[in-house]
Amino acid sequence: MNYKMIFNIIGRILLTEAALFALPLGVSLLYGERNTPLAFLIAAAAALLLGGIMVLLTRKGDRQAFAREGFIAVALAWILLSLIGALPFYISGEIKSFTDAVFETVSGFTTTGASILTDVEAMSHSLLFWRGFTHWIGGMGVLVLMMAIIPNSSKGSMHMLRAEMPGPIIGKLVPRARDTAMILYLIYLALTITEILFLLAGGMPLFDSVVHTLGTAGTGGFGIKADSLGGYSPYHQWVIAIFMLLFGVNFNLYYLILIRKVGAVLKSQELWFYGGFVLASTTAVTLNVLSVYENFGEALRHSAFQVASIITTTGYSTADFNLWPDLSKGILLLLMLIGGCAGSTAGGLKVSRIVLLFKIVKREIKRALHPRSVSKVRFEGHRVEETVLDSVSGYFAIYAFCLVLIFLLLSFEPFGLETNLSAAIACFNNVGPGFGGVGPLSSYAAYSPLSKWGLSFAMLLGRLEILPLIIALSPASWNKKYR
Amino acid sequence: MNYKMIFNIIGRILLTEAALFALPLGVSLLYGERNTPLAFLIAAAAALLLGGIMVLLTRKGDRQAFAREGFIAVALAWILLSLIGALPFYISGEIKSFTDAVFETVSGFTTTGASILTDVEAMSHSLLFWRGFTHWIGGMGVLVLMMAIIPNSSKGSMHMLRAEMPGPIIGKLVPRARDTAMILYLIYLALTITEILFLLAGGMPLFDSVVHTLGTAGTGGFGIKADSLGGYSPYHQWVIAIFMLLFGVNFNLYYLILIRKVGAVLKSQELWFYGGFVLASTTAVTLNVLSVYENFGEALRHSAFQVASIITTTGYSTADFNLWPDLSKGILLLLMLIGGCAGSTAGGLKVSRIVLLFKIVKREIKRALHPRSVSKVRFEGHRVEETVLDSVSGYFAIYAFCLVLIFLLLSFEPFGLETNLSAAIACFNNVGPGFGGVGPLSSYAAYSPLSKWGLSFAMLLGRLEILPLIIALSPASWNKKYR
Repeated sequence: MNYKMIFNIIGRILLTEAALFALPLGVSLLYGERNTPLAFLIAAAAALLLGGIMVLLTRKGDRQAFAREGFIAVALAWILLSLIGALPFYISGEIKSFTDAVFETVSGFTTTGASILTDVEAMSHSLLFWRGFTHWIGGMGVLVLMMAIIPNSSKGSMHMLRAEMPGPIIGKLVPRARDTAMILYLIYLALTITEILFLLAGGMPLFDSVVHTLGTAGTGGFGIKADSLGGYSPYHQWVIAIFMLLFGVNFNLYYLILIRKVGAVLKSQELWFYGGFVLASTTAVTLNVLSVYENFGEALRHSAFQVASIITTTGYSTADFNLWPDLSKGILLLLMLIGGCAGSTAGGLKVSRIVLLFKIVKREIKRALHPRSVSKVRFEGHRVEETVLDSVSGYFAIYAFCLVLIFLLLSFEPFGLETNLSAAIACFNNVGPGFGGVGPLSSYAAYSPLSKWGLSFAMLLGRLEILPLIIALSPASWNKKYR
Repeated sequence: MNYKMIFNIIGRILLTEAALFALPLGVSLLYGERNTPLAFLIAAAAALLLGGIMVLLTRKGDRQAFAREGFIAVALAWILLSLIGALPFYISGEIKSFTDAVFETVSGFTTTGASILTDVEAMSHSLLFWRGFTHWIGGMGVLVLMMAIIPNSSKGSMHMLRAEMPGPIIGKLVPRARDTAMILYLIYLALTITEILFLLAGGMPLFDSVVHTLGTAGTGGFGIKADSLGGYSPYHQWVIAIFMLLFGVNFNLYYLILIRKVGAVLKSQELWFYGGFVLASTTAVTLNVLSVYENFGEALRHSAFQVASIITTTGYSTADFNLWPDLSKGILLLLMLIGGCAGSTAGGLKVSRIVLLFKIVKREIKRALHPRSVSKVRFEGHRVEETVLDSVSGYFAIYAFCLVLIFLLLSFEPFGLETNLSAAIACFNNVGPGFGGVGPLSSYAAYSPLSKWGLSFAMLLGRLEILPLIIALSPASWNKKYR
């Protein structure tokens, strides 16, 4: 095991975080806040100190990294990142309990958007900005960001990208990992700025536009109002609905558009399925909630917004979908599990995995009839390797096991099946709001500290797609000699 | 496609059913009932007529059967069996709606035990017996029974056994399928008689003993009292708890005991996991419900009974577990999904599939670290073929898809997430009672006819392990030329 490499990477990620604190610090100075500047300075100092020591101590040494180092570095980095990211909330006194501050920060970085705040509107501007900014950082990945901005000549950096980026198959856009990271972040930045401009054009204040865009881009869902986006105009709601869907698309497709391969984009099976799920769900929910709203247009807008918000695992809301009929809630619950496309900022199982699972099932039915038949699975125009199919079905199994454990942990709380199960699903899939006691107008404040730590872990499991954390936390990874 | 073979098999199964009606007819005559004898006679005549025509028309012809014929014959046979089995309930007038009668019969044959009866104690003896007897027939399988009693020289009969018997790997006990079927039924009969004797020994009336034993043996769960087994003595509750667990064990193990290979039995990984799940769940539930009961013994008895009843997907109850704390309900919900051992009369995913899924996950973690490593999965002392692993993970995926569809169908009903989700799980896994509106003291009477037909289909899907029904109902199976 190459410990030096692991701590070198973690150190550099913490230095990146230290630099990123400059933005919320600027916001806090801009608004002339009292308690928050010091809080951000202390947090930045902590990140700088810890990261600096790690980098200094590991300057020299082997730069070779394998899959194991990648997984472990990413897992530990995300944990440390969250602990330090929680400091401004805690030091400023705006979140009283450290557990709550960590929950909120993990929820931010993992782009979950589940909150323990009972009065979000009482928060200072800088902390509201920081909440949104954690979404933006976590969405595309802090390691990807670090690789994009810090010169890095280490071998095996694709392993790092793989460990942090969601989806069953990670394609390099260009030969060098660093260039891939830069391209991804440039697309991300361009889309982010576009959304801000669209929101400003409709008359949304600058601060609101920025924070909501950060939450949209990361498919996170932290807002600044008690009723999320319920109080904004239909224009703004439509803009955010559309951008949520855009950020739920595989970013590789935007790169293909940039290099003018639009034909390849239109051939993307994942994109078609994603669009199909969105259309079908929106239609079904609209028809189901027609009676709840005054007219078809309103029903359509609320349905489209909630469907876009939930399938992309963002978690913004324009309506209290907790009061919707069971069928709509059932559909939303399933969309939570499906999630967005691989290689997007969205969580969930990912559409491509669902499509591959369909194909696996289809092949099994064929095999039951013709036991000796040989049939290959094709996806996105290529034959899918058996090992990829194995990893998809293996991921589905471990995903189910994890969900079961999270649900069992929450069952110690007396909130009933609907609340506990939807809380487990909403956190694990990085959605945010669930049903019942954790509905869009409620919060996770009522859960015990143990459950909050459990849910924080669940959010990290979901964001990093399970394996990095399991590998980092299993003693076998640390005890055995590396081979 | 060999249509003749398919209809020949279905015909013989219906003739078997016609003969089986003799038993409930005997009960109705014994108790001097008024309406039921005619009802059973008409049902038997219908089975005799339909089965007779099928057999007569398909006497001659190719006796070759492949996997496809096996799946289709079993699927159609179970559907017809249920429709004809519903006649006595409907003709006697004791169940007013035909939908309800079919639901009750499908629930019986699939050993689910979900009931639409709101007053079970008002039923006549013969129909209560018939309800229990459908469990017994469906538990080991009617096709297996037919093969055991009717001389059959057709080739490919192992395909039939495979289509009806649950579990990922079906082993022949002895070279000839017919002998395997006979051995299985003899073990089944011996265990059944033993349980009746144990219940009689404790002073339970003969009728009660027989019906409860039929429900235990098939892991079905139809009882004769409104509070299921709540009113019987602790001795009887313990006897039934133990026999439920015994009927949830792979019957191959009993054969191994008979041929004095006890060592092989003790090496069964599935048995150890099954025991482990039962022990761990009973311990957790006992501790969780301690405060609900007067003393430890009572808490242990109710916990052990409910755990045994749910993991074996029987569905008997001695307590209203719907009122238990969330943790216990969460554990029971998971046990519903796990189910009993492969090759038993229990439903659910089956313990062996869970164990294999664990192993698949473990291998995927290993592969993530060492992409080029080759690792084989071993189970029950043998290397597991890759195709078996594929079929296990494929089954898990299709199982999840089916559960989602059943849940969505029920979501049209206004009963809330807890009731609808647990109803979907309880029916699909052939358990019977769920939580909320379908708790152990409630019934499925409130569901709409559409949902009842959907749930009936779900029970069949669960009992036949999905594939036979999908293959039988997919037009592709019928249109294309067989190859």
